[in-house]
Amino acid sequence: MGKTVAEKIFDAHLVEEPYEGVHVLSLDRVFCHEITTPIAINDLVARGKDRVFDASKIKAVIDHVTPAKDSKTAIQGKILREWSRRHGIEFFDIGRNGVCHALFPERGFVRPGFTVIMGDSHTCTHGAFGAFAAGVGTTDLEVGILKGVCAFKRPRTIKVEIIGTLKPGVFAKDVILSIIHRLGVNGATDRVIEFSGPVVEHFSMESRMTLCNMAVEAGATSGICYPDMVTVEYLWPFIEDEYPNKEAALEDFERWRPDEDAKYEEVIVHDVSDLEPLVTYGYKPDLVKPVREMEGTRVDQVYIGSCTNGRIEDLRIAAQILEGKKIADHVRGIVSPASPGAYAQAFKEGLLEIFMEAGFCVTNPTCGACLGMSNGVLAPGEVCASTTNRNFNGRMGKGGMVHLMSPATAAATAIAGYITNSPLFREG
Amino acid sequence: MGKTVAEKIFDAHLVEEPYEGVHVLSLDRVFCHEITTPIAINDLVARGKDRVFDASKIKAVIDHVTPAKDSKTAIQGKILREWSRRHGIEFFDIGRNGVCHALFPERGFVRPGFTVIMGDSHTCTHGAFGAFAAGVGTTDLEVGILKGVCAFKRPRTIKVEIIGTLKPGVFAKDVILSIIHRLGVNGATDRVIEFSGPVVEHFSMESRMTLCNMAVEAGATSGICYPDMVTVEYLWPFIEDEYPNKEAALEDFERWRPDEDAKYEEVIVHDVSDLEPLVTYGYKPDLVKPVREMEGTRVDQVYIGSCTNGRIEDLRIAAQILEGKKIADHVRGIVSPASPGAYAQAFKEGLLEIFMEAGFCVTNPTCGACLGMSNGVLAPGEVCASTTNRNFNGRMGKGGMVHLMSPATAAATAIAGYITNSPLFREG
Repeated sequence: MGKTVAEKIFDAHLVEEPYEGVHVLSLDRVFCHEITTPIAINDLVARGKDRVFDASKIKAVIDHVTPAKDSKTAIQGKILREWSRRHGIEFFDIGRNGVCHALFPERGFVRPGFTVIMGDSHTCTHGAFGAFAAGVGTTDLEVGILKGVCAFKRPRTIKVEIIGTLKPGVFAKDVILSIIHRLGVNGATDRVIEFSGPVVEHFSMESRMTLCNMAVEAGATSGICYPDMVTVEYLWPFIEDEYPNKEAALEDFERWRPDEDAKYEEVIVHDVSDLEPLVTYGYKPDLVKPVREMEGTRVDQVYIGSCTNGRIEDLRIAAQILEGKKIADHVRGIVSPASPGAYAQAFKEGLLEIFMEAGFCVTNPTCGACLGMSNGVLAPGEVCASTTNRNFNGRMGKGGMVHLMSPATAAATAIAGYITNSPLFREG
Repeated sequence: MGKTVAEKIFDAHLVEEPYEGVHVLSLDRVFCHEITTPIAINDLVARGKDRVFDASKIKAVIDHVTPAKDSKTAIQGKILREWSRRHGIEFFDIGRNGVCHALFPERGFVRPGFTVIMGDSHTCTHGAFGAFAAGVGTTDLEVGILKGVCAFKRPRTIKVEIIGTLKPGVFAKDVILSIIHRLGVNGATDRVIEFSGPVVEHFSMESRMTLCNMAVEAGATSGICYPDMVTVEYLWPFIEDEYPNKEAALEDFERWRPDEDAKYEEVIVHDVSDLEPLVTYGYKPDLVKPVREMEGTRVDQVYIGSCTNGRIEDLRIAAQILEGKKIADHVRGIVSPASPGAYAQAFKEGLLEIFMEAGFCVTNPTCGACLGMSNGVLAPGEVCASTTNRNFNGRMGKGGMVHLMSPATAAATAIAGYITNSPLFREG
């Protein structure tokens, strides 16, 4: 019987099946950041198990609060730093750091067919490379660090085939919001979502990461895109010594595409031809409306960044709209490039200058604002247009309201001072 | 009888002398930031006195925690923002903000002969323009906001005449550290310090601000430099409509120099010819040693920024040393340009690129790390080489140790990984 991508990855990584339906998989990557990993480290140390299964497969970064905002976060950073040094784990400290789900792909750490865990709910982002990548809790993280394995239920897969032609000014963020709206926030719980079809095939790796990043907002364990030449091109600087040429890499990667006769729990054909730019309302990411219907909603802050939409592609789109413009007087604009690479590239291309001249505050790479931890927390009653991934009640600060949207919509909203469609959007 | 600068300013601003020795002065500037002013605002509102004496003389900025790190700081910013809007006060919000004592001078808000108060101990910085500038508590701040007056004891003045020739690689920071060392942390309590002499005359406005900034570390109410052509040149873009030419401005400014026969409590002749780069040890800023004697002290973090040394001159010196170099592996480097102007200029000159390539984290303009509030707080046991102004126990984070030094020494220390003299320093 044919297999889905997740099934292939599970089979290739199966260590044992202690009981029916539970698969213990070997791990290719355990990623760590300073918020959840120190809890695991402290526990491992307390149990006399201060060991790691394979230092070369573990990567660590400070990204949620950087530089440290108080003693607590300074200590979290210190624990992660000292643990990394102690075990020879590659560690991205302040000055070399960025948002985990942007930095680690940028460093070529994720490959098709990999198993990846991290104590972070948006670990599903890495599925964009044709990997199985899942956020886990502290106990799983500890076992992963110590033994290099993690137990998962054999996942059922929902295949979302994205077809049609996107209108100008409609982006991956709008596509994933439309899918979450369709599935609901629990629509893919315990499932893997395979994102397939011509629209995805034409997406850059950055856009695929945006898609997979928010799979968890529909409840999914992992989102997955199929590896193809786009994947090869992105990873080529990191794999050029491993393959004679790109075609050979592609052939190898294609092992991690589903079989023709793979069995899906559900196949959803999702036509995006009529899709308009979308925005969330309320406190759940499946509460989605066309921007048009929210037009005029006043905002206090516009945030461009995060593991969802803080990559170079996102910065380029936002800067294109902001160039030569000023943001509204009553709006605070914050842009946090998600990785050192995105920051440096945006710097080089003059994008950061455009942001600054428009009135944006450009922070160092960090994702603290997204979950109300640093660098852009809302006061009660404030409204934020944000390119992030969650609009939960109080997510960006107690009493604050978050409207999720694409970088294009966010940039246009910053200029107007209220939610509005970007000039890139044309009804077509 | 001749008068000191402070006496002249006091006489020109005297509103009343309710009792012997206490002078109520009219205020030219009331500066506000988000940490201390919201307390005053809330109290004024609670008392039914939500008024300001003259909105044009009040300026407000968010600088200590920016962008907000939590609900508390978001609310502080909101209170200041809404108050500024309500009263038409010029407000420097996130994206246009910087460290108060760097931003406000950069905007030309301080002139010779001015009286300036702020709820911030380093308000004395503005004395570099020949102003009387003092940090005040909440009650004084409230009265200042409401009535435009503040009561001060008639200040006794210590004149510090700085003579000699500085060796290459010795800077204003080293000079003020040597003066604080000589006076002691209480040596100028309730006094004004006039910084005079040929060394000061040759200092840029930036260096004069560094001098005056740390006057409070010897206990002084205000530091003061004499206005001269350097002052005129710095302020010219802001005053060119007020004077027919620079000479006329100079003549006007010179009213705010002391009389030849002014009476000082003490005149100290401070020869800096033999001065070497200095660094603090322990927890008081008068505990100062030559860098040479602290050579080899390992550091975890290097911080370049703050109202003391985050200006363009400081960034240029540090970048000159860092160019083409990498900071030590175990060191976190953080540079926080102190103002939007310094940031933009450093950007334009390629300095930020040098910092980043050396491994520094470049933050948006803020001063939070200096007092352990944001963007670079130390964990217990950590050591920081810092261009800031206070090495109090726990200042940059509970259990952390701070060594104050010049930007040159800080940059060299970042590269070495331990305290060391900069290559700019030559025994001469």
